[in-house]
Formats: sequence, C-alpha cells, structure tokens
Amino acid sequence: MIIVLKQNANKQKVEDLIGGLRERGLSINYSEGSHTTIIGLVGDTSRVDPEDLEALEIVEKVRRVSEPYKLANRKFHTDDTVVRVGNASFGGENFGVVAGPCSVESEEQVVEAARRVKAAGASFLRGGAFKPRTSPYAFRGLKAEGIELLLIAKKETGLPIVSELTSLDNLDLFADVDVIQVGARNMQNFDMLTELGHCDKPILLKRGLSSTLEELLMSAEYIMSGGNQNVILCERGIRTFETATRNTLDISAVPLLKQLTHLPVIVDPSHATGIASLVEPLSKTAVVAGADGLIIEVHPTPQKALCDGAQSLTPDQFDKVMEQVKVLCKLEGKRL
Amino acid sequence: MIIVLKQNANKQKVEDLIGGLRERGLSINYSEGSHTTIIGLVGDTSRVDPEDLEALEIVEKVRRVSEPYKLANRKFHTDDTVVRVGNASFGGENFGVVAGPCSVESEEQVVEAARRVKAAGASFLRGGAFKPRTSPYAFRGLKAEGIELLLIAKKETGLPIVSELTSLDNLDLFADVDVIQVGARNMQNFDMLTELGHCDKPILLKRGLSSTLEELLMSAEYIMSGGNQNVILCERGIRTFETATRNTLDISAVPLLKQLTHLPVIVDPSHATGIASLVEPLSKTAVVAGADGLIIEVHPTPQKALCDGAQSLTPDQFDKVMEQVKVLCKLEGKRL
Amino acid sequence: MIIVLKQNANKQKVEDLIGGLRERGLSINYSEGSHTTIIGLVGDTSRVDPEDLEALEIVEKVRRVSEPYKLANRKFHTDDTVVRVGNASFGGENFGVVAGPCSVESEEQVVEAARRVKAAGASFLRGGAFKPRTSPYAFRGLKAEGIELLLIAKKETGLPIVSELTSLDNLDLFADVDVIQVGARNMQNFDMLTELGHCDKPILLKRGLSSTLEELLMSAEYIMSGGNQNVILCERGIRTFETATRNTLDISAVPLLKQLTHLPVIVDPSHATGIASLVEPLSKTAVVAGADGLIIEVHPTPQKALCDGAQSLTPDQFDKVMEQVKVLCKLEGKRL
Amino acid sequence: MIIVLKQNANKQKVEDLIGGLRERGLSINYSEGSHTTIIGLVGDTSRVDPEDLEALEIVEKVRRVSEPYKLANRKFHTDDTVVRVGNASFGGENFGVVAGPCSVESEEQVVEAARRVKAAGASFLRGGAFKPRTSPYAFRGLKAEGIELLLIAKKETGLPIVSELTSLDNLDLFADVDVIQVGARNMQNFDMLTELGHCDKPILLKRGLSSTLEELLMSAEYIMSGGNQNVILCERGIRTFETATRNTLDISAVPLLKQLTHLPVIVDPSHATGIASLVEPLSKTAVVAGADGLIIEVHPTPQKALCDGAQSLTPDQFDKVMEQVKVLCKLEGKRL
Repeated sequence: MIIVLKQNANKQKVEDLIGGLRERGLSINYSEGSHTTIIGLVGDTSRVDPEDLEALEIVEKVRRVSEPYKLANRKFHTDDTVVRVGNASFGGENFGVVAGPCSVESEEQVVEAARRVKAAGASFLRGGAFKPRTSPYAFRGLKAEGIELLLIAKKETGLPIVSELTSLDNLDLFADVDVIQVGARNMQNFDMLTELGHCDKPILLKRGLSSTLEELLMSAEYIMSGGNQNVILCERGIRTFETATRNTLDISAVPLLKQLTHLPVIVDPSHATGIASLVEPLSKTAVVAGADGLIIEVHPTPQKALCDGAQSLTPDQFDKVMEQVKVLCKLEGKRL
Repeated sequence: MIIVLKQNANKQKVEDLIGGLRERGLSINYSEGSHTTIIGLVGDTSRVDPEDLEALEIVEKVRRVSEPYKLANRKFHTDDTVVRVGNASFGGENFGVVAGPCSVESEEQVVEAARRVKAAGASFLRGGAFKPRTSPYAFRGLKAEGIELLLIAKKETGLPIVSELTSLDNLDLFADVDVIQVGARNMQNFDMLTELGHCDKPILLKRGLSSTLEELLMSAEYIMSGGNQNVILCERGIRTFETATRNTLDISAVPLLKQLTHLPVIVDPSHATGIASLVEPLSKTAVVAGADGLIIEVHPTPQKALCDGAQSLTPDQFDKVMEQVKVLCKLEGKRL
Repeated sequence: MIIVLKQNANKQKVEDLIGGLRERGLSINYSEGSHTTIIGLVGDTSRVDPEDLEALEIVEKVRRVSEPYKLANRKFHTDDTVVRVGNASFGGENFGVVAGPCSVESEEQVVEAARRVKAAGASFLRGGAFKPRTSPYAFRGLKAEGIELLLIAKKETGLPIVSELTSLDNLDLFADVDVIQVGARNMQNFDMLTELGHCDKPILLKRGLSSTLEELLMSAEYIMSGGNQNVILCERGIRTFETATRNTLDISAVPLLKQLTHLPVIVDPSHATGIASLVEPLSKTAVVAGADGLIIEVHPTPQKALCDGAQSLTPDQFDKVMEQVKVLCKLEGKRL
Repeated sequence: MIIVLKQNANKQKVEDLIGGLRERGLSINYSEGSHTTIIGLVGDTSRVDPEDLEALEIVEKVRRVSEPYKLANRKFHTDDTVVRVGNASFGGENFGVVAGPCSVESEEQVVEAARRVKAAGASFLRGGAFKPRTSPYAFRGLKAEGIELLLIAKKETGLPIVSELTSLDNLDLFADVDVIQVGARNMQNFDMLTELGHCDKPILLKRGLSSTLEELLMSAEYIMSGGNQNVILCERGIRTFETATRNTLDISAVPLLKQLTHLPVIVDPSHATGIASLVEPLSKTAVVAGADGLIIEVHPTPQKALCDGAQSLTPDQFDKVMEQVKVLCKLEGKRL
C-alpha cells in the first residue's frame, strides 16, 4: 500500500502515522521528493482500510498495490479449486453445464426441460423458484412450490439442481438444493454471504451489474472466510452505456479471473445480453476463454415463459449449442 | 407500448397476438410499412411484460412509451408528497437535513455528533449500526448496540433518527428508529422492499450504484404497492468510468425526478464522491436543483472514523455547509 | 418512428404536425388513449431527425423503431461484403489477420516484425506512423518516415499494410498504404469520414471508446454514402467502470454486428484490455464469435516498445496465438 | 510513481531497471516484502510512460501518484487564470455566459438571438457553422456562410463570438472568431490541439463523452505546451448507463477541476441532458458549484431549429435563467 502525503504535511503527524503503522507490523519505506512524498507499506495490509488513512489531514491519497483478498487469491493457493456435486464438477479439467428454465412454472415444464437438457449433456438443472423482478406487478416465482417441482425433476432425471436464494428467510427450503445461487443483485448482500459461509453447499456467486472483479473476489472472500471454500464465480454481463444488448458480457473477466483466483469461473450467456440468438456464439467464447462451465436458460416453449422468454433457448436450440460446446471443450482439454 | 414485428411475420400469428392483446383491454393500432410493421398499444400496459412479447418469434422488439410505475407517477398524483416525522418533513416547501456519523462508534461520539448537527440546523440524526462493507475483514458496525446508542442520542437531543437496515432479520430492532434507510446495495432487494411496504415508517430509498431512474421509481413502487406511501428518494452518485471521484453525482436526477414523481428527493453529497472537500459545493447544488433535503456524514473526529472517514465533515465544517444551505433554501422558498 | 404526444396537446398543432409528416411521404397511425397518445410513422424515416420532433411543445418523446442506417444495413443487402486487398480478404469465408508493432520505430524493427508475422500466417502488416497519445510529452510516431519504413517492409515481405490516419493533412502520404485505419478517437471525425468516402481504399473503422453499435454503423454509413463501400468494422473494447482491464472487450458486438450489417467485423484483442497475456484467449473468442479477422500488436522486443509495450506480443507468443486461431478458423469454416 | 514487481523477479533485471531510472534523475525507494516488492520513484515523472514500464517482464503493475500534467496543474500555478476577450472574461471573479443557437441558420435568426441574449446579460454569442452530426443525412451547418452571419451578429451587438472548429482545414475562416471551441468529439484530436497551441486565441475545450478529468487536463496541457495558455475547460456531460438524459452532467467535476487546475471551468447545461426544462436548474448548480461560466443554447424558435431543438431555450426562457444566475453569482461573489 502506498500513502501519498500532502505537500507541507506536519512532520510530527507524519512521524505519528509511521509509528502507528509500524506497530501494526508493517515495514515502512519513506521517500521525500520536492513535490511528492510517499510512504510505502510492505506486509499484510489486508486489514488496513485505505479510507481510514485517506481521512487523515496529512494524506493526499492512498493506493493499494496488493490484492485485498487472501483466501480467493491464486498467489496463496496455486492449484485450481474443483467444486464437486455428485458426479458433476466445475474447475480444473471439469466443465459443468447448468441449464433449465428461468422460472419454474409447472411440473410438466420443469421435468420436460430437465429431460431435454440432460439428454443434451447438461450436468445440472437450473430453475428459479424465487425470482427478483424489477416490477412489483410481475410474476415472482412459485416459491416453495417451485423448489418442490425442481426436486421432482431431480428425482426423475438425477440431475443435481441449482436455484437462486433471494432471502435468508427461505434458506430452510433449500435443504435439498445442490447449489445455491446468489444473484447479481445480492452479490453484495453481506449478511447473506456471511450466512452462506457457514453452510456446506457450493455457492454459485454471480457478478453484480456494476461490480468490479475485485469486488466479486471480495464477496467470494466473505463466503470463504466463513469456512465454505466451494464458491463458483459467474460472469453474467455488466451494465454499460451500450443499449443494443441488455448487458455487456465482459469476456475478458474469464481469463483474468483464472489468473487472479483458483476458484472456478463460469459464464451466463443468457442474461449477458438478453437475446436468444447470441447464446450460441457467446457460449462458444466462454469455452475458448477458459471458463469452467456455462449456465443457460432453456424453456420447452420460450414464447410462453413467464419471465425472460426473450433470452431462453428451445431444447432444440440448446442441443445445437451443446454440440458446439462439446467440440470446443475437447479442443481445450476440458471434460464435459 | 410499441411492438415492432419482424419482416415476413406469419399473418395468423400476428392476428392471434392482436386478439390476445385486445382481450387484455388494450386498444390496438396496426401500421404496416414496406420494411417495418408496428403495433401500437394504448391503455394500461403496466402489467404487460415487454420481455414476454419479445420472446415471440414474430416480434423484433418492444418499446415502452409510458412509464411502468403508477403510484409513484406524478401524472396520476400531481401534488407533492410530504413525508413528516414529528416536526421535521421532506417535500413540498420542506427541506430536511439528515446528518451524523457513518458508523455509530460510542455513546460519546454519537451524542456529540447529534448535539452539533442539531445546533447547526439538521432535523434528523443519521448513524449506521449495520454497515455494508466490501471486505469481510472491515468493521461492520455495532449492530444492536449501535441502535441503542442512536436512541440515547435521540433522547438527548430530540432529533428523530435515520438508520440503514441491511437485513429483514434485524427489523425488530428498528421499532424506535424513525426513518428506515434502504441502502444502494439493497435498492433491488425486492423481499426487503415488499416487507417495508407493509410497515408504517418512512423509507429513505437510496438509488443503486448502477440503477436507472426508472428502476429507482419501480423500487419505490414496490414499497408503495404494499401500502406505504412514505418514500423518500435519495440520489447518492452512480458508477461511471470516472475514477477521480468514488461515484458520479447525477445532479440532473433531482429536477428530473421532481418532474416524474411526487415523492420527495434528497441528495447524499458525502457518498456521491467520497471526498470531504466536495460536500459543501455539492450540497449547494442540491438545493438549487430543487432537492427536498440532504443527508451528510458528520463525525466529531473524522480521522478516527471506523469507516468512510475520508468523506466525513467535522462539526465545524458542517456548520459552514449549513450556513450556505440556509441562504440558498431561503432563496428557493424552502423551509429548513 | 413513434411520436408520443404530451397530455393535453393542442389539437390544431397535432393536426399540423400530422399534415407535415404526410407531406414528407410518411404514412401515419394515430392512437389516442386516456393517458397517452401516440403517432406511428411508417415509411423512410432516415431523414427525419427525432430531435427536431422532440423540440415541438406538443411532443413528449420520440422513439425510433427502424435503424437509421441504410447502406450498412443487412436488411437491404443480405450478402456478406468481402473486402479484398491483393490475395487477402475480410468477410464471407475469409478471415484476415493484421499484425505488427504499435509504432514503427526503425527499419530493422518493422521488417523483422513483418517477416515474423507473415511466417506465422498474418495477411497484413500493421504499424503506426502517426500515433495519438494522451500526453503531449509522449512519443508520437515517426510520421512520414514511418510510412516509408512500412513500405520497405511491404516490399520485403509482400504483406499489404494497414496504418492509422490521424489527420486529413497527411492523406497524401497514404497513397501506397493498402488499408487506412480510422482510430477509435476519430470514429466520429465526420470530416475525415466524409473525405474517406471519396477514396478508393478499404477503411478499417475502429469503434469509439464510448460509441454504441448504432453510432459505429452510422459512421460506416458516412463513408459508404460517399461511395466507398469497403469498410471493415473493428471492435476494440469500450470504456466501462471496470479498471482491471484498460477497456472492456464487447465480444457480443461481433455476432450482433454480423446480424445488423453485411460489412466485415474484426477484433483488436490488444487494445481491448492492454494486457498481453489476454491476447491469446481473446483472439480465440473472436474467431468463435464469428469475427472476420483480428488485428494484433506484435513487437520483436516489447520491453523496448516506444508505446503500448504492455499489450504487445513477442513473435514467439504470436506464433502460439496463430496456431490456435488456425485450428478454430478451420472449425468455423473460415479461410485464413 | 510506484512500480510493483512480480514475485520472483530476476534480481539482475531489477538492478538494471533501478540503474536506468536513476540515470533519468529519479530517486528510488526499494521496499521488499514477502509477497510484494515495490519501487517508489520520486522526482519529475511526467516523461516516464507507465506503459513502457509495464511491458517489462519483471513488472506486475505501475501506479502514478502525481499528476502527469504540469502547466495546467494548480500545484505549480496557484493563482486563477483569467481568460479575457474585450470586456468579457472567464476565471477569477469573472463569470462569462455564452449563449446562442446550436446552428447558425440565417442572418435574421442569429442577429435576433444575439440581441436577445445580450439583453439578458450574456457576454458571448455562440453559434455553430460547422456541425458534427451522427448521421450523414443530417444538416451539417452553413459552414463559411455561417461564420459570416456570426460576424454580422457580432457587428450588430458587439458580442464576441464563440464557434466550433471541426477540422483544421477551416482554421483560416476563424480569423475573426473570438474564441475557438474544440468539441467533445475532438477533445483528443491531438493534431488539432497541437495546432491550436500555436494560435493566440482563447480555446474553449469541451470534455469528451467518455474522458476522465485527467485526460481533459492532458488535452489542455497539449494546447498549453504549444504556448497558448488561454484555455477554458467545459464540463458538458459524460456517457453513462442512464438513458433518461442524453448524457450525465458530472457536476462534481467543477469543484474538483477548480482544485486541480488554475484554468477557468464552465458548464454546458444544454448538451448535458438534451432536455430544455433542465437547463435552468442545472445552470444554477453550475454557479454554486464554483463554475466560471455557462454555455447555453438559445434559439428564437426552437421548434424550427435544424439541430438540437429539444435542448434549446426560447429567449424568454433564457431571460428567466439569467435572472436566477445573476442572483446566485452575486451571492458567490462572481461578476457577471
């Protein structure tokens, strides 16, 4: 961490600051120039809050030079983390595909979707029982009944299930859900992250619409610091000025995250743009960018979907995507 | 709402669509051109989900032309809503100032802050008991004890209090809190909004870091559709490419929101940039832009603040801000 | 185009507006609702400026429903445009790779770069003679001498050359340059676009840092409306809130542009992030997303580069990228 | 400047780097930690390009700690620069108002606009003769004739004139124009900036749509390093995700720029949002934020404007804005 001092900073206060930092076990490097004086801190700065330092009247600004996350950092854990659920896994050589409808609507719908995505090669069934919706007048999911229908589909097909938790109040209902999804809007719901750090289920953590990669990794750190190391990161598009797509898929996030962290990284090409015809090309980009999996919306009859129909694939379209994904996974040495 | 059809859309399917929309009580206008055919919907389209329509294979795109919010819409409620708490109010001719520390740290700190901000003319005390923090290793607030300390300060000074709720699990602790703040990260925590719609306290709803004004108004609509009409909107900076400030204060949001909605609108100049020296000029811009209030961080000793010290004012600095705010309020015909 | 009228709009003025629009050859559809009245315009609206209409006191807002570009629009030109230069081409089944140093620095450097990129399979040599630099104190290119050195490298290797024009004043110097590049900062330099519309060379048009896809296509339209149909579009990263990479590669732009336009689309993975280690994975994403080519910075000794060294590959690294690109091109049915 | 070294960086290469930096007259501070080693550079680093350093294989990243601009920096020039044109000035205690039509359309229009804005208290007439337009099919200005009409209006009213230069080819036509405007799209047209550095006219430099404040100041530095110190900076809105306004006015830029630089800073409330009804409140925010002036679009008959009518004020509306601006200027101690 680097502290840039104000010009004409009071000498005594500078000495006090340096003394205080040394007491916290940090080594100090002091460089005085004609216009700029900087203090370099070397050591474990993860518990030093840059904002505390910036509040000091002698400080002009503070810059971090090392990452504020430890448990999620590849520097301290070089091997890939593999998250396993039954026979399916994400990470290392394992590529996992999660597919299914945005919302669970009926037993028929979700079982049909499960059968078709399993046949196409998906390893997980997704389905929303609790749906975050921008409008209070929109369909918000079947809730407890939705979870039950997912479990029926799991029983019928053997596919482990992934579903989104929108409130800790419903956590009990997720006892038989295999992977708990934290949606983009809850990526910084720190109470939720803390609680999920104490549970023993894998967490699929989606990047917030305007969250930096560092913030995403800090949210993973929340879960991991509670004891749960099974975190799967998901890039699902960020909010930019471009309006031609609902969000902008930040594909560079995939190889960059793979450098920064040992956790598995997957891509959601459905929410990334909101346009069904882009799911196939974007799924392919995810594989060659080094992703460890995909999460894709598939609906037996998208035009009847109660939410996000525009971005859902039909089972036939999903078959076609999976054919391409399989070819590329083989090329990349990934096991689907 | 406007539906743009794909070229060569199947005629029977177009007729089916039009029939279905008519059944929902909408009047239809059909315009066929050589390259583009559009269907105009007139009537109450607030329950028509554009995404459902965009999923249809005959539809190219859908554009809303009227606002999807009703209860918050000034078109249907032309008079300003005034939110009152004891003698203090926001809205109409009333300008409310909320001030106090980012985090409640001790009785001495919060009572001292309360005395000073009251003396300067603030009408509410703010203080965080539950603090959302990006890092799991940072101070996250005194929690229940923090609320108790705020209530002591309220007793000492008579100032009503505003504090942030980060989880519904803590709602019981807020029984004597006067105004519940929903933070930027929870603006789309729909379970929380729904629950707060059933409570009888005013809600201070902060705009999310990457939320549009329409999304902010839809979140207000969530609370209002539950029965609670006492919503105060707060512009607190949005996330952009600019890194010189922590966020970018969207000052245009103030006069624009005042046109779109009857709800009071306040500004948070402290979080908007994270830079204490900008709080004074930005507070002044809020008043002349037509805001109904301010929420400002004030700490007796900002350099000792456990969070966000860099953006907190000293009580002396706050006195100076309030002098300016008073002059401008008078000019604008606002009662402070 | 859709015109939304203000509530209580003066009837006579509405009739005048409708009359005026009919005179411009547009057919009109008028839908009056209780709260919203809309006018739908069908016909060629490319010369109707929405801002002119929005200035009318009876108009609330105006929404385009059809694209404002015609010549670049795939709807009116379904076949892929193929841009050919000697034996190399972009578009259709042809995949073109442009490679070389950010700046031309010496004959030795550029000839060495040219030999190596040709051997690896590149079809064009790139090199900057005129360099846009943020700082007035930075190296701005060898200018006329740089062009001469590129022509020497062309003679030595037979590779056609691509170089950036930063001012029309230098256009004469580009007489033997094969493809003229318009940089991101000049994407809306309309005087330059107009002039290049009258020349007979292919134009490589880079997307501006904060330009929408529609704006990119409108800039292509500028060139095409002057008579020059040989425009190659280039996605090179947009500016967002994310600071981990210099820009954010908008990979969805590739398949979306291929739907919207018949022009070839290429990707610049070097500028997209500014990080050399991401060039390989991003080049691969470009191929599978359907791009028609790549433009990559390669420097014999990146650590000695006078600009943008951080994002340049060594020739050995480029060899490795090209091996991967070739495999994926074959899979995609593209001829490299 | 801070250089963060890679873990396990080759010792000899690190020593070579340090030697090279010392030769450039910089003092070096070297801090080795268990996971991070940093080199602090103190001295004049304005000619050290961070990207050159980041290209070295031993370097992980580079962070600037001092501003890369010198001539525009308030640290080296504490007094406000005042830009004077005849009796009108920007900067220090002087507040300048530039007003007039977006485009010059006719003698009658521009003379009428000039008379009215002068009567209301404007000190400069603005008018576009060369108009950058997104569409090649839109009106692009009267060009040379437009400049002539502006000069007629100047003769009639005595108001000095401000007009936008879109290409250096037209510079001769600007001989009698008092202030040359560099538009947002040309803020990084470095050839133009360099040339204008050699001229003796004040330059009104508009911030680019996605330019940081540092980039704006570097563009001012370009002009100043050529010898022309008369630069006026203009905040005119930046591009963000918000679509309710055309751009987002970054009002914090005003007080922050006033801290960072001695140059005058003005605000364009018309282009900032594209909505006429927001010009009055935003003009007021500019004054209280500490701006040195305003540039406002005024058209005798906005509904007949050939461009940007939606954001133009009528002369009567402008009168009302100026009344408010005068009151606030008096309060702020500014001379209008």
